[in-house]
Amino acid sequence: MNAEIIAIGSELLTPYRQDTNSLFLTAKLNEIGIEVSFKTIVGDRRSDLVGAARMALSRADVVIFSGGLGPTEDDLTRECVAETVGRRLKRHARIVEDLRARFAARGWKMAENNERQGDVIEGAEALDNKRGSAPGQFLHINDAGGHAIIILLPGPPHELKAMFEEQCMDRLKQLVPAQHIVTRELRIAMIGESMADKRAAPIYKAHSGVETTILAGSPGEVQLHLRAQAGTLEEAQRRVDALATALEDEFEEAIFSTKGERLEQIVGYYLDMRETTLAVAESCTGGLLAERITSMPGSSRYFLGGAVVYDNSLKSALAGVPPLLIAEHGAVSKEVAIALAEGIREKCKSTLGIGITGIAGPGGGSEAKPVGLVFHALADGKNTEVVDRIYPGDRDRIRHWASQMALDMVRRKLM
Amino acid sequence: MNAEIIAIGSELLTPYRQDTNSLFLTAKLNEIGIEVSFKTIVGDRRSDLVGAARMALSRADVVIFSGGLGPTEDDLTRECVAETVGRRLKRHARIVEDLRARFAARGWKMAENNERQGDVIEGAEALDNKRGSAPGQFLHINDAGGHAIIILLPGPPHELKAMFEEQCMDRLKQLVPAQHIVTRELRIAMIGESMADKRAAPIYKAHSGVETTILAGSPGEVQLHLRAQAGTLEEAQRRVDALATALEDEFEEAIFSTKGERLEQIVGYYLDMRETTLAVAESCTGGLLAERITSMPGSSRYFLGGAVVYDNSLKSALAGVPPLLIAEHGAVSKEVAIALAEGIREKCKSTLGIGITGIAGPGGGSEAKPVGLVFHALADGKNTEVVDRIYPGDRDRIRHWASQMALDMVRRKLM
Repeated sequence: MNAEIIAIGSELLTPYRQDTNSLFLTAKLNEIGIEVSFKTIVGDRRSDLVGAARMALSRADVVIFSGGLGPTEDDLTRECVAETVGRRLKRHARIVEDLRARFAARGWKMAENNERQGDVIEGAEALDNKRGSAPGQFLHINDAGGHAIIILLPGPPHELKAMFEEQCMDRLKQLVPAQHIVTRELRIAMIGESMADKRAAPIYKAHSGVETTILAGSPGEVQLHLRAQAGTLEEAQRRVDALATALEDEFEEAIFSTKGERLEQIVGYYLDMRETTLAVAESCTGGLLAERITSMPGSSRYFLGGAVVYDNSLKSALAGVPPLLIAEHGAVSKEVAIALAEGIREKCKSTLGIGITGIAGPGGGSEAKPVGLVFHALADGKNTEVVDRIYPGDRDRIRHWASQMALDMVRRKLM
Repeated sequence: MNAEIIAIGSELLTPYRQDTNSLFLTAKLNEIGIEVSFKTIVGDRRSDLVGAARMALSRADVVIFSGGLGPTEDDLTRECVAETVGRRLKRHARIVEDLRARFAARGWKMAENNERQGDVIEGAEALDNKRGSAPGQFLHINDAGGHAIIILLPGPPHELKAMFEEQCMDRLKQLVPAQHIVTRELRIAMIGESMADKRAAPIYKAHSGVETTILAGSPGEVQLHLRAQAGTLEEAQRRVDALATALEDEFEEAIFSTKGERLEQIVGYYLDMRETTLAVAESCTGGLLAERITSMPGSSRYFLGGAVVYDNSLKSALAGVPPLLIAEHGAVSKEVAIALAEGIREKCKSTLGIGITGIAGPGGGSEAKPVGLVFHALADGKNTEVVDRIYPGDRDRIRHWASQMALDMVRRKLM
């Protein structure tokens, strides 16, 4: 079975907004074995919308409309879909009453316009909207005129997602042939996309029956998405397991997560589990490493804090780096990275300390120390390891690469 | 005139990838007065692609195809568009030679497959691709069969953008009626989208002939996009200026930028211009504020650094907050925010110091100090101002709101 997703709204045809609901809907449809063949984005004009709906019904088994269910004159989805399938709209008294109660609860009087939100296509089921005012609709046509599943959903993502998950998935499952689908997402640190692709390609070829997608995440991260669809759950599982195992053998500990977890999340698990604390002293990453670590709820259990030591005087004042060391080797050097890691560890009394110093660009590079050069050090009180890399890309990408490497050093140490 | 953009590629119908070229193309088309009426995303199947192309030509004056111009069997755009318009493909010897030279320069032999990239629709001009191997095509049909402009572009964004800008814009301008379009983007800090919309709406109504779009940026930021199209440049300019002036009167200094600059960029301008330096002590934002400030190239001129003081002991060790003050008022308090701002300023010897402490959640809230409560302080050595807010949303949004408020306090101080 195949589907078409139609996103409705003139704002989606400006340079500023993009339909993102379709990514969520695609993931959900794929889960139950429905492929998306087309996505269409159309504005709030009646003839455009009817034309798009007609086209979709001619080429897809399932057609999902998002948006255009509000109370204003621009909200035409109900009327246009009804016209396309040649059915009438019926105003549901219960929905209108619910809407009126919703308004009354806030002390408002409902405008007459809003009654239109109670209009349901003949034969369709109304779908409750617990997060907004626009109800959805689910219409299964199976008669001499043809076979089609039509779903109308509100545009706001949190309303659409809840409604689709809670009220559409079960209805769809009853109408599509049973499918057994297993997915897996492997994430790899510090290997480029083309290199990962090159190493994964021969393994993919040796394992049939699994769809694979390679995706470059943020710098220093590659995601391998595996998906098998089979007559039995066991068979789908067997295929995904076999391929995942072969990929794990190839990439070994470069694979940091097998369920789509973020690197900062995995590092947090390890730190928490080992009752280890961390402090960081960052120069070129300017707070990005601390920001990523503290983006995880509960990070205060293992992350003490740290210093952003942009100015050289702060490398000494906050992280205890001897000024002479900086004068001798330069702020961007192996020696200063080590001193930052050891210094911040002592200052913060943490188990582990990280030091990062480098040149994020666009200015400040030289032949000996080019833009992209970064030193990363990790101190544990006994040993301090240090790694230097030259990263490609702009300021943003260089900073992200460096934060990724530092997190990966912690992960490998605690593995 | 109106346009349809068709993005081609089965990977764009997965949950993992999204067509983003269309946002760039829409901005460029709008610049010369062409509106986008439809966007379609279709996979690499011949019948699907021909159907989509036929539909597009029936409803749009300009049809732009992106993707599917490579050398493999999945790359069907050339064949399908030729079939749709009923013209033949002609292999251009010059393009094939250029491709062969491209391969030879790298010491490779070109596979026969690649010759297909030299196939051009009869009557179309080939567009050079300086950044990749797939040439584009520009076809202007103006005969008894009808009128249409058809453009074929490669899928990779950096190839598509350069080709469209350098080779398509001038060709299009010659074919569309002359338009005079003026745009403006006002950005507003620390006012919510619905409140901004409510205040802007009556002003919009009093100024006709300007299209307006309100867009919620990251938390604490609203963007107002203005666009006027008129017979003369002066008239378009006059309309945008009049509306922008009225909006500036309404929102006054809440407007921080009028050309789309980011808040950290504006704050950087002011700090640089006033030869002022800044240091920060962050608790709940965990490095986000420093990260935003240092994301700007050249920020080392005015940003010295700071401390991420997650653990209470570090509030004292790195920012000099007396432990007794924390014991007395709690880490999340007006008093500690002030001490952080004053302490980090002294420690770093900066002109200005910022202190942030709050509860980003999801845990850690209480009735007296709920999740979302944040204290922001700004010290200049004489006075320290402090602002408290309770922000809505999740951990991410609360942290972003807080960093935005701190930046905005610096901006207002230096204005």
